[in-house]
Amino acid sequence: MSIQKPTLPKGTRDFGPVQMARRNFILDTIKDTFKLFGFQQLETPAMENLSTLTGKYGDEGDQLLFKILNSGDFLKNVHEEDLNKGTSSVLPKVAEKGLRYDLTVPFARYVVMNRNEITFPFKRFQIQPVWRADRPQKGRYREFYQCDADVVGTDSLLCELEIILMIKRVFGKLGLTDYSIKINNRKILTGLSEVIGEKGREGELCVAIDKLDKIGWEKVKEELGQRNFTKESIEKLSPIIDLQEGNHAKLEFLKSFLAASETGKKGIEELESVFELLSTYGETEANVDFDVVLARGLTYYTGAIFEVKVNNVSIGSVSGGGRYDNLTGVFGLEGVSGVGFSFGVDRLYDVMEELGLFPEENMEKTKVLITYFDEKGFTYGLKILNQLRKSGISSELYPDESKIKKQLTYADKKQVPYVIILGDEEIQNNSVSLKDLQSGTQESLDLDTLIAKMK
Amino acid sequence: MSIQKPTLPKGTRDFGPVQMARRNFILDTIKDTFKLFGFQQLETPAMENLSTLTGKYGDEGDQLLFKILNSGDFLKNVHEEDLNKGTSSVLPKVAEKGLRYDLTVPFARYVVMNRNEITFPFKRFQIQPVWRADRPQKGRYREFYQCDADVVGTDSLLCELEIILMIKRVFGKLGLTDYSIKINNRKILTGLSEVIGEKGREGELCVAIDKLDKIGWEKVKEELGQRNFTKESIEKLSPIIDLQEGNHAKLEFLKSFLAASETGKKGIEELESVFELLSTYGETEANVDFDVVLARGLTYYTGAIFEVKVNNVSIGSVSGGGRYDNLTGVFGLEGVSGVGFSFGVDRLYDVMEELGLFPEENMEKTKVLITYFDEKGFTYGLKILNQLRKSGISSELYPDESKIKKQLTYADKKQVPYVIILGDEEIQNNSVSLKDLQSGTQESLDLDTLIAKMK
Repeated sequence: MSIQKPTLPKGTRDFGPVQMARRNFILDTIKDTFKLFGFQQLETPAMENLSTLTGKYGDEGDQLLFKILNSGDFLKNVHEEDLNKGTSSVLPKVAEKGLRYDLTVPFARYVVMNRNEITFPFKRFQIQPVWRADRPQKGRYREFYQCDADVVGTDSLLCELEIILMIKRVFGKLGLTDYSIKINNRKILTGLSEVIGEKGREGELCVAIDKLDKIGWEKVKEELGQRNFTKESIEKLSPIIDLQEGNHAKLEFLKSFLAASETGKKGIEELESVFELLSTYGETEANVDFDVVLARGLTYYTGAIFEVKVNNVSIGSVSGGGRYDNLTGVFGLEGVSGVGFSFGVDRLYDVMEELGLFPEENMEKTKVLITYFDEKGFTYGLKILNQLRKSGISSELYPDESKIKKQLTYADKKQVPYVIILGDEEIQNNSVSLKDLQSGTQESLDLDTLIAKMK
Repeated sequence: MSIQKPTLPKGTRDFGPVQMARRNFILDTIKDTFKLFGFQQLETPAMENLSTLTGKYGDEGDQLLFKILNSGDFLKNVHEEDLNKGTSSVLPKVAEKGLRYDLTVPFARYVVMNRNEITFPFKRFQIQPVWRADRPQKGRYREFYQCDADVVGTDSLLCELEIILMIKRVFGKLGLTDYSIKINNRKILTGLSEVIGEKGREGELCVAIDKLDKIGWEKVKEELGQRNFTKESIEKLSPIIDLQEGNHAKLEFLKSFLAASETGKKGIEELESVFELLSTYGETEANVDFDVVLARGLTYYTGAIFEVKVNNVSIGSVSGGGRYDNLTGVFGLEGVSGVGFSFGVDRLYDVMEELGLFPEENMEKTKVLITYFDEKGFTYGLKILNQLRKSGISSELYPDESKIKKQLTYADKKQVPYVIILGDEEIQNNSVSLKDLQSGTQESLDLDTLIAKMK
């Protein structure tokens, strides 16, 4: 066995203790919220049959799928002439499985395979890694977590309300305040294309105005022109781009602007209902912004469209989703509509870090390290350790007889906030010396007081 | 896009809501325990370089690694003549990465890559899936979770104590009572081979007596004979096989039996110390059994060896581990010794199910479903929903106006224990009707009483 310097595959990461504690802080907050709202957890295998995955993400997506080499003699069906035909001819012969690319397709597969057992409406959440053979770059990884919640089997706008409520709760618990839950409705975009005289072209319209944030209105106009939208229709869009008032002012304006489009009016109506439900529930519209140009480039949304942006940070969008009509049609089950959204955990992590929002307290770490001078101290410490743990206090006894300084360094590096120091005096008095490593203060306590204090 | 009936890859599973709740019950119990004992979480990528994985698990293990096809033109280095040379010649040209086979090798890689940042002794735990291209069969899957805890960088027997304590705590919390934590020490096995006159052959000895449980002493004797152990040395082993008294009687017997072996005596001494530490900590020896023939077939253990068996169930071993000398030598870092163990989560799940130990209560599920007759009820219900969730009570409002019967069926199928029914009377009195679906009783409550009761 040759000795080698190990490395990580490109685009992948280890998560050490500090990162894990922070990631768990985010994930636990999200999970708690999903459960509070009655969502149930699903996990699907990392590997799916390529027949399940291929063709669901477009040509580019197919390229980015990680494929798994068949076990055993993977060459058994490959002949010399296949080599000349290239990868697309050889691939089906050497690989039957691939790694999960997102959580939506496996969810759709699960719904189809278990449709007779599932209780609809089905509120499911799923938090698992996905893999994409993308070119790695800052903030883009080949393995990353997705964190999805969907409700399928109901058209109720209560679901849209609950998405807003869950985002608000999660962001509140994470300490994020300066953010915007942008909401729009695909029907409004359809209505827009109708009233500007480009009926049926909302798809192209969406693709173009989706870039508004990045390239600006002038460039979007150019692109629309190139796509043969007429000058008049583009001009008619202008008031929409400049809308900058509150949610209800926008809704009022659009009511007249879209008056000629039944679909557009339906979209406005749906959106108004969501705002009404929000108010009935007893929640304000703070952080909720109707954004009439929000399109998310994705053409399978049929109703609400969501996107969450955190203000004043380098990373923008941290969550998105919407309502769709046909989740499972591709697997032969029609009529399963739903609404869902996804938290970008890696992006939330970066945002929290940029804003310094990770709490120092309550992170997963040992609360007390017991240190000692000699074997007698170790023995005494072992008893104290048991008492602390019985009270649910995460605690450690330094394992080796070492200089106190070394033991304190261990506590310091592991960011343990309290250290117990056990010398002859403590053993005799059945007490402990407790040192607060942050303040530097030290006090002598009996065991009951210690436990009360640590709790 | 052709419509297809989706399937799962062989040997993989979905975990639906009920299974997830049960799995989380097990995993959360284990995680809580690890954290209480000061272990810190690590996660490593699903994909590792094949150079990291290959050669670490023996030839059979290498065969069972799932390999990932290189992205893009994976054939670019494959020539016609390679095809004739077979898979072992083609493999390195088409696959650079593989899926994690266990958590130990990635842990060793992590320690080597981060040795300057890690605070030793390093107490890490890791709970992640692993993948093996094994032939799927009952209880054996191609994707399954491992759940490891290791301490590296100390020889202190405190670590061995803590393994026992953690297992006891986890099993206690899970409601498992009839089980045995078998403990042995590799040095005792070395000592045995010495005193029976087969010095240096403890490896072979271990392989043979490891099968004692499965094939019995007569067959083990046969195998030892085939391996050219002398008749005398096999005969000398006999008293060891028949030992059936308590831990301390066994230790006493072995003290004289192994008197001629320094290593053997050291093993006894270590084991005695662990029992002493257990007593000093204030924990009994209940469920802890010195098993002098426990070998676990694995030759890299150098000190303590652990295995946990649940009695009276079809699946036996649910956890195992031991002390090792050289975790990271294969990656060029010598001298990192440690001790660790692993919970078999899938096996624990099966055992818990067989014994009917999963609690009905406290499983992750919605506690209250709010049902209603009409829009007025829905609106009133929305306000109650907010109050319940503000009090941390997992609750749902049925999303669609439907017959009460349909709403109750939803609650029943989702195993929601309580249902609130809102009619005109409740709306007028600002109250709720709460139905306990288990007992069938129904009562009228005001909101404060409801929340107090649900908490």
